[in-house]
Amino acid sequence: MRIIPVAGVLGFLILATGIAMASCIPVAMYYGEADIRALVVSVLVTLGAGSLLTLFIRRFQKEELRAREGFAIVTLSWIIIPLFGSLPFLLTGSASSLTDAYFESVSGFTTTGASIFTDVESLRKSILFWRALTHWMGGMGIIVLSLAILPLLGIGGMQLFRAEVTGPTKDKLTPRVAETARLLWGIYVLLTIIQTGFLMAGGMSFFDAVCHSFATISTGGFSTKNASIAAFDSPFVDAVVTFFMFVGGTSFALHYQAIRGRWEYFHDQEFRFFVITFLIAVAIVMAAVVPGEYQGDLAKGFRFAAFNVMTVMTCTGFATADFALWAPLAQVVLLFLMFPGACSGSTGGGMKNVRVLLLLKAGTIELKRLLHPSVVVPIQLNKKPVEQETMFTIAGFIILYLVTFSTATILLTAMGPDIVTAMSAVAASMANIGPGLGAVGPMANYAGLSDAAKWLLDACMILGRLELFTVFVLFSRTFWRT
Amino acid sequence: MRIIPVAGVLGFLILATGIAMASCIPVAMYYGEADIRALVVSVLVTLGAGSLLTLFIRRFQKEELRAREGFAIVTLSWIIIPLFGSLPFLLTGSASSLTDAYFESVSGFTTTGASIFTDVESLRKSILFWRALTHWMGGMGIIVLSLAILPLLGIGGMQLFRAEVTGPTKDKLTPRVAETARLLWGIYVLLTIIQTGFLMAGGMSFFDAVCHSFATISTGGFSTKNASIAAFDSPFVDAVVTFFMFVGGTSFALHYQAIRGRWEYFHDQEFRFFVITFLIAVAIVMAAVVPGEYQGDLAKGFRFAAFNVMTVMTCTGFATADFALWAPLAQVVLLFLMFPGACSGSTGGGMKNVRVLLLLKAGTIELKRLLHPSVVVPIQLNKKPVEQETMFTIAGFIILYLVTFSTATILLTAMGPDIVTAMSAVAASMANIGPGLGAVGPMANYAGLSDAAKWLLDACMILGRLELFTVFVLFSRTFWRT
Repeated sequence: MRIIPVAGVLGFLILATGIAMASCIPVAMYYGEADIRALVVSVLVTLGAGSLLTLFIRRFQKEELRAREGFAIVTLSWIIIPLFGSLPFLLTGSASSLTDAYFESVSGFTTTGASIFTDVESLRKSILFWRALTHWMGGMGIIVLSLAILPLLGIGGMQLFRAEVTGPTKDKLTPRVAETARLLWGIYVLLTIIQTGFLMAGGMSFFDAVCHSFATISTGGFSTKNASIAAFDSPFVDAVVTFFMFVGGTSFALHYQAIRGRWEYFHDQEFRFFVITFLIAVAIVMAAVVPGEYQGDLAKGFRFAAFNVMTVMTCTGFATADFALWAPLAQVVLLFLMFPGACSGSTGGGMKNVRVLLLLKAGTIELKRLLHPSVVVPIQLNKKPVEQETMFTIAGFIILYLVTFSTATILLTAMGPDIVTAMSAVAASMANIGPGLGAVGPMANYAGLSDAAKWLLDACMILGRLELFTVFVLFSRTFWRT
Repeated sequence: MRIIPVAGVLGFLILATGIAMASCIPVAMYYGEADIRALVVSVLVTLGAGSLLTLFIRRFQKEELRAREGFAIVTLSWIIIPLFGSLPFLLTGSASSLTDAYFESVSGFTTTGASIFTDVESLRKSILFWRALTHWMGGMGIIVLSLAILPLLGIGGMQLFRAEVTGPTKDKLTPRVAETARLLWGIYVLLTIIQTGFLMAGGMSFFDAVCHSFATISTGGFSTKNASIAAFDSPFVDAVVTFFMFVGGTSFALHYQAIRGRWEYFHDQEFRFFVITFLIAVAIVMAAVVPGEYQGDLAKGFRFAAFNVMTVMTCTGFATADFALWAPLAQVVLLFLMFPGACSGSTGGGMKNVRVLLLLKAGTIELKRLLHPSVVVPIQLNKKPVEQETMFTIAGFIILYLVTFSTATILLTAMGPDIVTAMSAVAASMANIGPGLGAVGPMANYAGLSDAAKWLLDACMILGRLELFTVFVLFSRTFWRT
């Protein structure tokens, strides 16, 4: 691995982070916050570090990045950028320790939305804005990563998407990473603007609408209110947020096609699987909560079931109800939904629906093969055959996901929490959801965990966000062999 | 599917069950039990039904069974034989309903060991003997099934074993099912006799020693005491039972080789994986329980950690301590161990170590392939390459296992239990362990669950025991197409 190109690209990304961070200064000035010096220092440190590193780029121009340098950049950027991102939390004194500031920052950039703040309403506006902005940048980063970079690296079966994005349709997305990224960025900005308009129509202030739009389209989940979306107590706001979480949890490759006039959503098997899973889950959760919690009120039951199923499936983590207090049936459905998560190529987290769907197909085909061993039944996705290599990669991914989940849960229980809290905290961190069950339920937060537990969950959030392989490959012997 | 051969083979198996059941009559007479009429009726009904069905066999002699008839026989026999097996419980009045009697019987034949009896010491000796005997027959059935029948049917990657059992060594097990079964039966009986001797040396009565040996080698877990193995309060008995659970959880193909003088245990990667997992788990559980529960007593901590890790890993379900009260760290390790379970070709349950091991290898190889996409690294087991088809089947198996687990847990929580109870009850039933956590912990039992919950867990026990595919294939459209 060559240090120079890795440092150069990292520098560029840190520089971009610093520029984004600078946008907090006018927010602080507009709201007349007393001490903007801490923000200015944070921005200068970030810009300075970024500029220093970008000097490396000049020494490295025509050569292409190699695969292993790609892995290093992706993983290091999701570790190091949150470090700079934690400066505003730390220097303004909003967070009391580096552990807490870094946790909040990792949670932001990985679009997890787990928080260590017990009273977000006491935070400065500029800090609330920065929290939302980390989500928004992280969400965009993940789309570019999952649609433009991971496919090139062949991560965890995601080469599927190479076909889908640069694929056989006439209106293909441009194969060049930079241009693809620019196109996706446009869709992302457009969706954010539309949602902001809707939320303002629903009665939110401009500030709240922008922050919540940032946190919705990125499926992040940080709110400006202690009670999260419940604070607005509006069926209209709930509906808007539910819809845009759904949009954020859908593959941006499909949005891209839609904007070009090709309405391919229901031609996509992963999307159909996502929608059907959602509908079934809502029905079960309603059956569990309508008779009890919502006293037979079907409309209210639907509103809360749909919102909370969507917030878990898309791995957003907004709350309108304390589902940690719901009937066990509803809780267990939400816990299991944390694993498949959202669609590939979206800002959502989890193992991704397409992987689960393909393995289910493998299971079904296996039944057929038992009766007719000689018949070859190829697995298909969207009418195209899936290579055995891809299935192999997906199987490897799932087992690594489960092993990581088990190991992290074991480590976390060693630090004190009960089983349900530990399992759901790890599942919610790896899937980048945010709230879990038990002591980390939707109306609680992560402040009460020990420092060690927070660092462990930092690792879970980054591992989950980067689809495991990208990170684990750095620990393999092969990686460091010259 | 042809009804006649299926009915004929089933009849033969029911007849064998009746003959075994008849052995309870002398036990009842020896202990001078008042009413042996109920037992006699149970035996006569079973023998009668079996004889009637075997009449079909005469009409069917030279033709071979087809694959789909094989599946039907395996699944139907694990559903119907426990029905006859429940007669002694029901007719003697030991169980108060068919639901309870059938649950106990399914739990016995699947070697699960989950019980609905709250006070087994109040049961007649003949009934205690019958409980142990259902384990013993079920355990033998599973060995023949997994070593001689499933490989021929190609279930869930178990064709691996075709190679292992009839494989390339000079001293190969005979490929004919009947002869293979006879050889395995001999080893099974021999191990039972040896353990009985050791347990009597440890102070058990002949009756208790036989019953516990039946329940150990079959990794079943029914005890004649309310407190299970804890009732004997003997480090020696604990050690003997731990060792024989280990023997029962090891592939009988390896025992077969050993008896022929070929000590191949540590050449077998699955066995090594099993042992290493055991040692790591014991270390973690000791770290969790020695400082608290066992006040720093390392020897005592080791004794209880080793016993309870082994009882969960081999899916036996004997108890020497109420691990549902242990520290969360210990509980979560035991919960996760329920999934991989024991070795393939053993009487133990779970997904089987070999499947988990092979998927872990797939994950590791995936990391290498990311850095060197062109390099082909074949997955090997015991230095022989594993076909991609096999990996494919294993991936399908694991996802079906997880989907079945999730679905059953969701259904069970709908019937009332809390999350930990429901998850662990389903996991412990599917893996054929017996006790779970929460309300179904090792010192509790399944009596308190609703009837619907018991039937659901009956299905889980049978599905888990028959490696899912065997059962699910009966529900596929292809199966019923002519």
